Amino acid sequence: MVAIDVLKFETNSPADTSPLEGLNAAGYEASRILAVIGKTEGNGCVNDFSRTLAQTVWQPLIPKDAITIFSGGTEGVLSPHVTFIVRCKDDDDDASGLVGAVGHTRDLDPHEVGGHIHARTVADTVANMITGMNVSPKDVKLVLVKCPLLTSTKIETARAAGQSTICTDTYESMAKSRYASAIGIAVALGEISTNDISAKLQTEDSWSALASCSSGAELDDNHIFVLANDPIAVKVKPRLKAISRPMKDAIDADAALDLLGQVKEQGGKVVQIFAKAEANPKGLIRGRRITMLTDSDIHSTRHARAAVGGLLCGLAGDTQLYVSGGAEGQGPPGGGSLTVVYSMP
Amino acid sequence: MVAIDVLKFETNSPADTSPLEGLNAAGYEASRILAVIGKTEGNGCVNDFSRTLAQTVWQPLIPKDAITIFSGGTEGVLSPHVTFIVRCKDDDDDASGLVGAVGHTRDLDPHEVGGHIHARTVADTVANMITGMNVSPKDVKLVLVKCPLLTSTKIETARAAGQSTICTDTYESMAKSRYASAIGIAVALGEISTNDISAKLQTEDSWSALASCSSGAELDDNHIFVLANDPIAVKVKPRLKAISRPMKDAIDADAALDLLGQVKEQGGKVVQIFAKAEANPKGLIRGRRITMLTDSDIHSTRHARAAVGGLLCGLAGDTQLYVSGGAEGQGPPGGGSLTVVYSMP
Amino acid sequence: MVAIDVLKFETNSPADTSPLEGLNAAGYEASRILAVIGKTEGNGCVNDFSRTLAQTVWQPLIPKDAITIFSGGTEGVLSPHVTFIVRCKDDDDDASGLVGAVGHTRDLDPHEVGGHIHARTVADTVANMITGMNVSPKDVKLVLVKCPLLTSTKIETARAAGQSTICTDTYESMAKSRYASAIGIAVALGEISTNDISAKLQTEDSWSALASCSSGAELDDNHIFVLANDPIAVKVKPRLKAISRPMKDAIDADAALDLLGQVKEQGGKVVQIFAKAEANPKGLIRGRRITMLTDSDIHSTRHARAAVGGLLCGLAGDTQLYVSGGAEGQGPPGGGSLTVVYSMP
Amino acid sequence: MVAIDVLKFETNSPADTSPLEGLNAAGYEASRILAVIGKTEGNGCVNDFSRTLAQTVWQPLIPKDAITIFSGGTEGVLSPHVTFIVRCKDDDDDASGLVGAVGHTRDLDPHEVGGHIHARTVADTVANMITGMNVSPKDVKLVLVKCPLLTSTKIETARAAGQSTICTDTYESMAKSRYASAIGIAVALGEISTNDISAKLQTEDSWSALASCSSGAELDDNHIFVLANDPIAVKVKPRLKAISRPMKDAIDADAALDLLGQVKEQGGKVVQIFAKAEANPKGLIRGRRITMLTDSDIHSTRHARAAVGGLLCGLAGDTQLYVSGGAEGQGPPGGGSLTVVYSMP
Repeated sequence: MVAIDVLKFETNSPADTSPLEGLNAAGYEASRILAVIGKTEGNGCVNDFSRTLAQTVWQPLIPKDAITIFSGGTEGVLSPHVTFIVRCKDDDDDASGLVGAVGHTRDLDPHEVGGHIHARTVADTVANMITGMNVSPKDVKLVLVKCPLLTSTKIETARAAGQSTICTDTYESMAKSRYASAIGIAVALGEISTNDISAKLQTEDSWSALASCSSGAELDDNHIFVLANDPIAVKVKPRLKAISRPMKDAIDADAALDLLGQVKEQGGKVVQIFAKAEANPKGLIRGRRITMLTDSDIHSTRHARAAVGGLLCGLAGDTQLYVSGGAEGQGPPGGGSLTVVYSMP
Repeated sequence: MVAIDVLKFETNSPADTSPLEGLNAAGYEASRILAVIGKTEGNGCVNDFSRTLAQTVWQPLIPKDAITIFSGGTEGVLSPHVTFIVRCKDDDDDASGLVGAVGHTRDLDPHEVGGHIHARTVADTVANMITGMNVSPKDVKLVLVKCPLLTSTKIETARAAGQSTICTDTYESMAKSRYASAIGIAVALGEISTNDISAKLQTEDSWSALASCSSGAELDDNHIFVLANDPIAVKVKPRLKAISRPMKDAIDADAALDLLGQVKEQGGKVVQIFAKAEANPKGLIRGRRITMLTDSDIHSTRHARAAVGGLLCGLAGDTQLYVSGGAEGQGPPGGGSLTVVYSMP
Repeated sequence: MVAIDVLKFETNSPADTSPLEGLNAAGYEASRILAVIGKTEGNGCVNDFSRTLAQTVWQPLIPKDAITIFSGGTEGVLSPHVTFIVRCKDDDDDASGLVGAVGHTRDLDPHEVGGHIHARTVADTVANMITGMNVSPKDVKLVLVKCPLLTSTKIETARAAGQSTICTDTYESMAKSRYASAIGIAVALGEISTNDISAKLQTEDSWSALASCSSGAELDDNHIFVLANDPIAVKVKPRLKAISRPMKDAIDADAALDLLGQVKEQGGKVVQIFAKAEANPKGLIRGRRITMLTDSDIHSTRHARAAVGGLLCGLAGDTQLYVSGGAEGQGPPGGGSLTVVYSMP
Repeated sequence: MVAIDVLKFETNSPADTSPLEGLNAAGYEASRILAVIGKTEGNGCVNDFSRTLAQTVWQPLIPKDAITIFSGGTEGVLSPHVTFIVRCKDDDDDASGLVGAVGHTRDLDPHEVGGHIHARTVADTVANMITGMNVSPKDVKLVLVKCPLLTSTKIETARAAGQSTICTDTYESMAKSRYASAIGIAVALGEISTNDISAKLQTEDSWSALASCSSGAELDDNHIFVLANDPIAVKVKPRLKAISRPMKDAIDADAALDLLGQVKEQGGKVVQIFAKAEANPKGLIRGRRITMLTDSDIHSTRHARAAVGGLLCGLAGDTQLYVSGGAEGQGPPGGGSLTVVYSMP
């Protein structure tokens, strides 16, 4: 169990590592970094090199076992930024209230991405991490996964090896990879049974309330971050807390207002919001037709981030939120998981 | 003074005129239509043929002196729809509470678009309309203008005639046209003086709190709709009311919550929301960098509609809102005008 | 058998029907029109309303049994234009050299689009048309098909009826529809056997050398145009001829130079070129990686039209060419069918 | 005067530095690199992070005084690749036939970008480089410049300092920067006079036949590469030669066929082609309307690269060409400079 702090800083480009100075100024050395979780200003899709650029500049600056999770796409009012997950300073470990763990799976072969092996591998790794954290699944408030996608090159590699990939469309592979990761998370959290993995991958109608997965071309394995309330600290006086409630659709202001209301009631202050967003797969919101899925100029994940980002940034009065697009299996269809981390007075 | 009703209906494509059946079913003949105000699902930019398509199919179905205002772009959670502004049925004229007028300017020559003549022409027309409505500017709650833009062909036409256009970039001409229209509205409403038109066109820092302008390639003149509270009806018991307060930036949830709160307090029900949205010209929201203006894949007006649409649809629980992009001169920089029409119990 | 002439005219927008005046000036009344085949300036994808707009304005102006085929996308150097296929004037019927037929299938239900029934229906219709033309398949030089696609609404309609669609991604449905149409054409031309339809739909590796199919949301049936050399006229002195040779990849200048060389040798003059273009499905051209399939900002059909359009317009010295994107089953993978219509001196 | 060799290699992503192995295998150490000139697979516009990524990974691997020039955008059939300009191996210096020089200007302040100081600075640097190469301007066959652009941040920085920038639209600043660079080149080559810089910046109608400029957010100075035929070697037996002739419009196949014909006649083999492409500023090619300038979904530079790339790749039978978009001042309006480097048998 590692008590963690959560700090966020603006970036002026995907290559901007100046947040490290901010972190130092706040009294944390780089060696305390567990994860760098960023929103970068690319398209968030297959050819989003802002993620790769961020990973390239950050990797040499953080501990070997730390992970990076860069989610592309700051459509609309979202501001590019990075959130650090750091080990608490030794002298205030007890007071934090939040615990975290980071890990990663083995590299996946192209033919494994988005399939049963993918889900199973994520499930095993997340389950091990939770065990290692010494918390129970009910303490967990968020599982973030950065997972691989299929490029033309990877698809060809599989084809040349006589293997078939989950699909042949590169953008579609991002969704398949997110869904498999989410199913893995759901299994690890006990939301669905291991035996159901294959069936759920087929039906594509299952979901975890705490999963947040994003795909990228910049990695071959899965980077994982698990966030939980410290079951011991909650009994005393935690400095930090996390609460979660999935949005049931992309305009579910109620879910957000409920969580933000809880924070306010306790006199808390929002540190960061982690949200997933997607187009309703039926092309409808509350019975009304939306056009995200028939817009061939802008992919639906970009639309979804912009809209949900607009809602949450407005309600929070803060544009540095982690809103990620493509919520397959990460909350109800058309909705998405939503987690608020906040500090107590 | 014409007492009006406001009704809105879903469309299944820009060519869908089935809302006319809905209108009929509600007891209004097409001859009562003053204006068809629609959101169509194009890109809202220069080559948005969804607007032209809508205008092409609607024009033959409405009275000769009725106008169409189609605003392209239903990014994010916005639903394509049309809002009818209709003359009240004779037997309930007194009860409406809202009055409206529609009109249009003469066709503008390419070299006039976005300049002094443009602003002046709009100012004169709007002023005449307000006078004709028998209301005072303080009763006005919204002035909607659909204005022309410059295509490559129009720019060449001017060049061939030895005339210069306000700019040579077609997308930029949309902004110039909106701004000139907004300045015209501000003059008509007494927000700025006629003598200041030239100066304000230069400085680009003036605005009307009630203007909502959108450009299109589908027209050469300006289509105008003025909406006001009926000063007589407000003293008795109006069925419909309008209130307005500009958003100060794209995440100004307070402005929206204030207006929606007033509606709720009075036991009212939102009929329609008219909002303008734009990227802050400095690329910042509340001091944080946003990326709408450096995204060369998606124009900033699309980003802005998606984000502000996400916020307003979430708060209103309704995706059929009129959210239009490009708020130059239509509310504070980076914000935009916001008008709520609601019905009383 | 109907002797035809082929004329093309510039359009200044998708709504421009002024080419009719050009046609009249050339001595042809609108009643002679068999087909209006146009390139319109939309994105050529699902939400291309330029096609619908063109169809909306043209339909009332042409004979009831005439067809429209609008292919969206004038990327790069391509100029928007329409090509008329008209019945020859009575007094010079004998001299034409080209014969044509137009037809259409019944409306397809959403669950039929892109599948076996789709292919079979096209095959039957084309076969009947060829028989009716009194030519043999070897005389045919081009079969153009405009076929339907799946929108979110159509997919939901099928789902509600308990039927499954060929896919659930709207853009992907365009490719499936084109492929099924092309397989239908191949069957009608004897390039593959009726019994192989199901197998070929599965393997997606078969093709017709003469097919050119494009999908659109603006229709539910398939519009078909068959073009052939008149077997009788070729023995005497034809005024018009057609030759065809598929491009083997998107940079196959040899195919184009060969056909254009034949025209030149005979002292002919190019009237129109009909070409199909696509991204090589393996993401490679002559072993080199290309990026059309990993670009999430621009769909591959747009890239392909721009590139092949650049090559052909350069070689022909003419930007008013019919270059259509998405060549599944219409020429070798990564290549596309190519037909040149030319006039003899 | 430095005798140079020119080698090119495929890249599998903007972060791929494996071409260095190819260079080594060909017998050249990294220390011989003068310039790395690459095509990367971004959008080639303001937010093209593929260029920044490439620069980030390459900078540490090349000599301190070597330069990088990454041009974004491999639309259509273009393949991502890098071209190395290297010092010849000592033992075959005499035989090369091509000479080159690399340099850079000082960093430009935001308010200088695209203006008189920019042009003057480039002019001076290029002139010095040519003098240093000991060649005359007529020997020069290409001047490549990578120049800065204006981001929202840079525009705000200038504004805060009370300075005005050449424009406030970030995409437009790319064009202004390219044009100023091209004017600088034209001055250095004696194509226009130093005294005319201001006038030419105003009229925007002047051009250099040998300039190739591309803008990027990844640098603040200008990176410059000058290529010339070695005036001494041409008299003996050069291994490498360069020839140049600007395309007069985007479909000028004649220019390309002329240069490629010269290569063929001499039994040569094309090593690399450097071309510039742009939309004709009037929206016309040979009198026909094109739509690159009214497409609000895809910027005109992307269209232009795709189309001209399609033509040149087809004619050369090679997809690894350097085709760069935005040819303001770099060849006739609507056309662009074109240089072919080839090896002799």
